[in-house]
Amino acid sequence: MTATLADALPGKIDTRAAVLDGFTRDETGRGGRPPRAVVHAHTLDDVVECVRWCSATRTPVITVGAGTSLEGHLLARGDEVMLDLSAMTAITRVSPFDFTAVVEPGVTRTQLDAALTPHGLQFPVDPGADATLGGMAATNASGTTSVRYGGMRPNIAALQVVFADGTVHRLGRPVAKTSSGYDLKDLLIGSAGTLGVITELTVRCHPVPDAMASLRLQFDSISDAVSAAVAMLSSAVAVTRLELVDAASIAAINRYRQTRYPERPTLFVDAAGPTRAVLDDVTALVAELARECGCTGIDIARTATERTALWENRHHLFFAIKAAHPGHRFLVTDTAVPLSEIAGAVDAAHRCAAQLGVGITVAGHIGDGNVHVVIPYSGETYSRARAFSDRMVEYALSVGGTASGEHGIGLSKKRYLAAEHGGAVDVMRAVKSALDPLGILNPGKIFDL
Amino acid sequence: MTATLADALPGKIDTRAAVLDGFTRDETGRGGRPPRAVVHAHTLDDVVECVRWCSATRTPVITVGAGTSLEGHLLARGDEVMLDLSAMTAITRVSPFDFTAVVEPGVTRTQLDAALTPHGLQFPVDPGADATLGGMAATNASGTTSVRYGGMRPNIAALQVVFADGTVHRLGRPVAKTSSGYDLKDLLIGSAGTLGVITELTVRCHPVPDAMASLRLQFDSISDAVSAAVAMLSSAVAVTRLELVDAASIAAINRYRQTRYPERPTLFVDAAGPTRAVLDDVTALVAELARECGCTGIDIARTATERTALWENRHHLFFAIKAAHPGHRFLVTDTAVPLSEIAGAVDAAHRCAAQLGVGITVAGHIGDGNVHVVIPYSGETYSRARAFSDRMVEYALSVGGTASGEHGIGLSKKRYLAAEHGGAVDVMRAVKSALDPLGILNPGKIFDL
Repeated sequence: MTATLADALPGKIDTRAAVLDGFTRDETGRGGRPPRAVVHAHTLDDVVECVRWCSATRTPVITVGAGTSLEGHLLARGDEVMLDLSAMTAITRVSPFDFTAVVEPGVTRTQLDAALTPHGLQFPVDPGADATLGGMAATNASGTTSVRYGGMRPNIAALQVVFADGTVHRLGRPVAKTSSGYDLKDLLIGSAGTLGVITELTVRCHPVPDAMASLRLQFDSISDAVSAAVAMLSSAVAVTRLELVDAASIAAINRYRQTRYPERPTLFVDAAGPTRAVLDDVTALVAELARECGCTGIDIARTATERTALWENRHHLFFAIKAAHPGHRFLVTDTAVPLSEIAGAVDAAHRCAAQLGVGITVAGHIGDGNVHVVIPYSGETYSRARAFSDRMVEYALSVGGTASGEHGIGLSKKRYLAAEHGGAVDVMRAVKSALDPLGILNPGKIFDL
Repeated sequence: MTATLADALPGKIDTRAAVLDGFTRDETGRGGRPPRAVVHAHTLDDVVECVRWCSATRTPVITVGAGTSLEGHLLARGDEVMLDLSAMTAITRVSPFDFTAVVEPGVTRTQLDAALTPHGLQFPVDPGADATLGGMAATNASGTTSVRYGGMRPNIAALQVVFADGTVHRLGRPVAKTSSGYDLKDLLIGSAGTLGVITELTVRCHPVPDAMASLRLQFDSISDAVSAAVAMLSSAVAVTRLELVDAASIAAINRYRQTRYPERPTLFVDAAGPTRAVLDDVTALVAELARECGCTGIDIARTATERTALWENRHHLFFAIKAAHPGHRFLVTDTAVPLSEIAGAVDAAHRCAAQLGVGITVAGHIGDGNVHVVIPYSGETYSRARAFSDRMVEYALSVGGTASGEHGIGLSKKRYLAAEHGGAVDVMRAVKSALDPLGILNPGKIFDL
């Protein structure tokens, strides 16, 4: 086994400098080095061949899909092969009666949903970016709908994985539940390509509710908005999205979209029902709970057109922030805290921003306690933005929260892993060493060995 | 470290023969040997001390709670220490605003629910037996409500675990979601005490719905009942229980309870809503979907009293089966299959039972594809009952199912692990060796090293 990579995978290797340079930058503001080569895999055999070659030659390998990681998962040190699975886009099977579909890892979220829509089904995990399912599994992505449907772990039934020695195994089973053996499937989800390469996913699908409505609810304070969110969760109404944006975010949207929404903390809520009659009752209940918690303004969208218009402004938030800060780049925090700590975390963010002199906007998956603070930075303010981000993580950990709700640890949050998990990081290292003894799979991500 | 166990844990050791003999039998019909001693742990320190002693002396240790395992998880070979956590019953904290509670592993399901009820909360995982939370986590238990709330994994946020070397680590975080590091929490759940000893659980609680109704729905065939169940799941109505019992089960109940229910395949369904108005609409929809799938008889219970009466007969099923087979013991299968394979699996069960000359009843968590077949046996028919059970597992595996939906592998299903997971069993072994290199934690369960 001394063939070159080009011999092992003829016609599938790219070493052009411009292509390799494309991997040196991502959303973190950190830089990486160009990898030594890109392997464009089209089949399971390609992946096996690549991993075997990397194993035989002790070459590190980084698996890449759409490249939308926010935490430096895909940055190279320079000696790595990038194993690109974005061409593995087969939707192998949709089984509506079983609420499952089998897909290759390069299938994106929107490609999957297009295949499911004719069956009245959806794949509910929506991280915003049109990421690949393989990448979403690798980072344990979640998003706006996780308050109702959960993130990737409960929505993946089974995986096919190529391990570091080139062996191929199936983890999990295509059933609603199993208690058979160790839960390797969930161990691989969120392991960021450090334990194996995901080459097939059996995903769980959910019915698209027959009736949906959206509400925009304004409050005088973040604290009132949090109370309303908890009241909704306590009432067991079926909200499918529960999003918070702060007054600064609304102000940015108003400037960008020429709108005149009250510049107050605002909840965006989706409610669903199996019938219009059920939905109307649920919507009325959501509005009533909001009012009881001090809601000062309610807009309800009932038709598809109205709902799109209502959410459109929320979806434009990041563009609005970008427009307000020309020439800047952006850090996005990703802490999650217990619900009782959300208001305190947002307060702390504003205090810290004032101290450091950084402008921030706050938006979050409030039903999950997952708050994203967006910090614009330029070359000279990067260190302040990074300091702010660090303080947010420290605050979250101090109240029992996590450094990452959904983006993953990657490179950016490695320094906090021990603060969050203590000696359990040694257990993670033991698992890594057992499954990848040569340390070739995305080395240096999540933790150092 | 050459102290005796009695020196290490003074006053907490029991070696009386009658006590040790109590561990030699369980629900599987297999026999174990008396363990060498029982350790009654009251604190984390007791557990650490016991595991350290076992590690230093290479003594195997089996952790035990309520002892309700159905698959031989707690049977000893004779050289083990039984580490009894049933006295660790503190409910340390209930945090209603965070929808979490912190409990010791010996707290039972009903004890936890009693503490949650005043807050309008419930812990939804209901395996039937009043098991301990630690045991339920160790076996990844689920039950009648899992169709709505999932099993133990999504309902446990964090664990405190004593590992084989006596170190204590926290896995997971008390938040709604995290993408920080490897998912060791879910790896430990379902590992049956073979990777660590769970000494504390942070559980997720759910609001008790304000309004609930129950429906009993009769069908001419299992196939029609399955179609109705899938129609309900497809409509996104919030059913919280979705249980199937076959005609033979209804017949057993009729004889035992002097009732006259039509002896047909029957679905028991719970529906929930945030208000009575929503619930009435949901209930009507469930009934309509059932009728469209050939439902021949519908009973709806709307008050708490009516609901209890409706479910009571379902809850008495096992007693009814016992009364019908005096002097017998019972094997219970635990396969789960894709929903499209349920009717076929039940057909196969009846064919196989006829061939082998065993009488069976079928009841299952149909929304999860998890079918329990109950097979009465006496001394001379045990081998036939076991043969039937084996055939059910083989059938399930042949259609993509799992040997265990919720009871675990224990001793009883070890022989099927490789058939279900293939080479992934070697990955499980690698994880086991990394976390318990001396092999002292419940050795011989799930797989042999």
